Amino acid sequence: MIEKIFRAMFRLEDLRQILRETAPDHHLSDEQKEDFEKTLAELKMVFDTKDGQKLKYLTDKIELRTREEEYINIDPIQSAGRLTPEARKVLIAYGDGYSVCDYCFKPFRLDYIKRPPVAEFMAELAEFVGMDVVRVVRGARNGFQIVSNALLDKGDVALVSSLAHYTLCIAIESVGALWKEIRVDEHNVITAENTANKIEEVKEQTGKLPKLVAVSHFDYMFANEHDIYGIGKVCKEYDIPFLYNGAYTVGVMPVDGKKIGADFVVGSGHKSMAAPAPTGVLATTEDFADIVFATTKLKGDITGRQFGIKETQLLGCTVMGAPLVAMMASFPKVKERVKHWDEEVEKSRFFIAEFLKIKGNKISSEMPRKHTLTKVDTRDSFDLIAKTHKRRGYFLYDELTKRKITGIFPGTTREFKLNTYGLNWEQVKYLANAFKEIAEKYELE
Amino acid sequence: MIEKIFRAMFRLEDLRQILRETAPDHHLSDEQKEDFEKTLAELKMVFDTKDGQKLKYLTDKIELRTREEEYINIDPIQSAGRLTPEARKVLIAYGDGYSVCDYCFKPFRLDYIKRPPVAEFMAELAEFVGMDVVRVVRGARNGFQIVSNALLDKGDVALVSSLAHYTLCIAIESVGALWKEIRVDEHNVITAENTANKIEEVKEQTGKLPKLVAVSHFDYMFANEHDIYGIGKVCKEYDIPFLYNGAYTVGVMPVDGKKIGADFVVGSGHKSMAAPAPTGVLATTEDFADIVFATTKLKGDITGRQFGIKETQLLGCTVMGAPLVAMMASFPKVKERVKHWDEEVEKSRFFIAEFLKIKGNKISSEMPRKHTLTKVDTRDSFDLIAKTHKRRGYFLYDELTKRKITGIFPGTTREFKLNTYGLNWEQVKYLANAFKEIAEKYELE
Repeated sequence: MIEKIFRAMFRLEDLRQILRETAPDHHLSDEQKEDFEKTLAELKMVFDTKDGQKLKYLTDKIELRTREEEYINIDPIQSAGRLTPEARKVLIAYGDGYSVCDYCFKPFRLDYIKRPPVAEFMAELAEFVGMDVVRVVRGARNGFQIVSNALLDKGDVALVSSLAHYTLCIAIESVGALWKEIRVDEHNVITAENTANKIEEVKEQTGKLPKLVAVSHFDYMFANEHDIYGIGKVCKEYDIPFLYNGAYTVGVMPVDGKKIGADFVVGSGHKSMAAPAPTGVLATTEDFADIVFATTKLKGDITGRQFGIKETQLLGCTVMGAPLVAMMASFPKVKERVKHWDEEVEKSRFFIAEFLKIKGNKISSEMPRKHTLTKVDTRDSFDLIAKTHKRRGYFLYDELTKRKITGIFPGTTREFKLNTYGLNWEQVKYLANAFKEIAEKYELE
Repeated sequence: MIEKIFRAMFRLEDLRQILRETAPDHHLSDEQKEDFEKTLAELKMVFDTKDGQKLKYLTDKIELRTREEEYINIDPIQSAGRLTPEARKVLIAYGDGYSVCDYCFKPFRLDYIKRPPVAEFMAELAEFVGMDVVRVVRGARNGFQIVSNALLDKGDVALVSSLAHYTLCIAIESVGALWKEIRVDEHNVITAENTANKIEEVKEQTGKLPKLVAVSHFDYMFANEHDIYGIGKVCKEYDIPFLYNGAYTVGVMPVDGKKIGADFVVGSGHKSMAAPAPTGVLATTEDFADIVFATTKLKGDITGRQFGIKETQLLGCTVMGAPLVAMMASFPKVKERVKHWDEEVEKSRFFIAEFLKIKGNKISSEMPRKHTLTKVDTRDSFDLIAKTHKRRGYFLYDELTKRKITGIFPGTTREFKLNTYGLNWEQVKYLANAFKEIAEKYELE
């Protein structure tokens, strides 16, 4: 069925292209007329004929992607980035390059555009994360970079978690600053105490306080919850700016930056906001907005020209087309879905409980789970099978694929991550059963 | 017709969503079954019924965008960024967040992905612009930023054209460096001589050579051609890195970076490569690749971890989803279309010749036109009408809109820019006639 749907959509794109080539009078040549009629007839036939030749490629080299329609996708980073139907529809209409710039008037800046309602979206987005000002940026990493560039000089120290994502570390490195790690406690959690200790350590070693503390609410490795309220408080005491990394929270659970005590909230569109890549959000307070969103100051030495309200660290307008408007289209549902985070966690816990019924299975992440992303440990279960299976570690991937489950890293049977976000109860149950079936097949208890 | 096409596409997205919610067994509940049948029936009806209620909105706030299907679009920046049908189809299939990362294996970097064939695309793209190495970046401006960040220290001077786009200037400013302008000659062209003079001037004033020279082949203001070969030679003599700004060339005309003598070639996906925003290309030589694409060096002080081959200035992976794969899908046609640049210029010249038949019309850009983007001067024609028309300057916009022509800035009748790129002969003739009709209506000779 999904192939038929794609086939029909592609025929519709072909029709659309004829309109584009004949705009505005749509006077069709005989050839175009024939082409149009033929395409329309093909379209009408799509759902009335049996499956014909398999549709595998979109262009000569790019395959069709049907992972979300044919499979249950538990990829750790993909689950909360899959688009809503609204976003997909908008993407069809707004794919062209500068599609959101049709009604860009004075003062010529993306966040002022009213049609489509970018300005309104920005205001709502700031409120959504509990901050004063927000900009859509080119991925969470671009948000880290903007803050680093605005706050850090060469050689300055910024503190990150020992579980920090690489993008945060290299954003700091990219401006010539240094990142130092805050130690996790025995539960793989970053505490306020360890944060304070590290601040003291840096102060002792360098004679200066760190210039920035940046910690994830839930990390990418275990999705453990870190003490961001406590860390926020410590940062306030030392008067060090605190960046709340919400790549795994903004868009899936409620986030109130000011309540947390954050000076910056960074989120990821393609990771957690049902938006295409590369999109992210960078929100801040009124105090810091003037620094990180500072407008251009230089002036042409010959022409004398200046560039008004363009924001230097953002390089002016950021995400100008399809990904932004798709993010906007998903936003009403995203605002709604964060209210149901509890149920998402409940489904995650249900799955984990079922998963743990297989003897030898363990959970590397903290328990009970507070997130839908989880790192599991199957060294004493599936990995034992892998040792003698002719496909080695690939057997698990094969078995899951056979059951139309995807998103596990191929070949891994020791520790791996999975994410149940957005699956409905039917799908979660199916998923749990699939693992149990595989365990039974290989005679794991 | 375009509304019907959209209506049908949206019904198909609705069907697709049902598949997503029921994956992988597609066991439909009674409600879903009913929904599916109803949607399919609606779909089949779309082309058999007369136009019903006008489809104006996609979501409650985002309007349908039909500018390319209903109008001739001569927007100066949009023409060469409109998507190919291949790109639009790919966008439908690859909209979800991390859609190109399904088969990302070791060493885990975007430009190594083989499925979809990102690695192959990168190799072809480097060849396409005549350079050794290329990366897809988050817009041309991100390319300027990466080079600035890698080459410039605080207070360093980079030379740009007096007609430089603001994004280049603020990319330089964003790293704390300064931009100085090279003077245009009496034809609004940047010459090798003026470039050499400016280099000498900076040397005299600061005691140091500029650290970078960055000039557009065709500028954004007049689309005049600048002496990039001569400038390349001057830069070589002074041993100053030369960035060729191909925002208006890469993707529409042949570009051979090495022949030009460029150390960097920057292009724009959404401006000239039939790709969605935010996309761009940054190409360089083997010599400079190690500098601008340097991999991360730092190491965790607690964990000892490093991030391998992630490129610091790129922040690791750049454009990870829909926009990249759409750019790839357009690429075969883009490679082909640059061979037909002469015909595009011919159509532009035809239009300009017709446009000049209206008394008082002038061309602000250099003549004869060597580009499809042109700045025209209608102060002695349409602006005279505007002075007494009750809609003032908006009358021209109104008249063009009535004739289904869009892309002119509303209210302007003095100087404005337009771009005929990608219009076929029928459309160019229609466009020329529309201007003449308006002139006749208002009794301009």
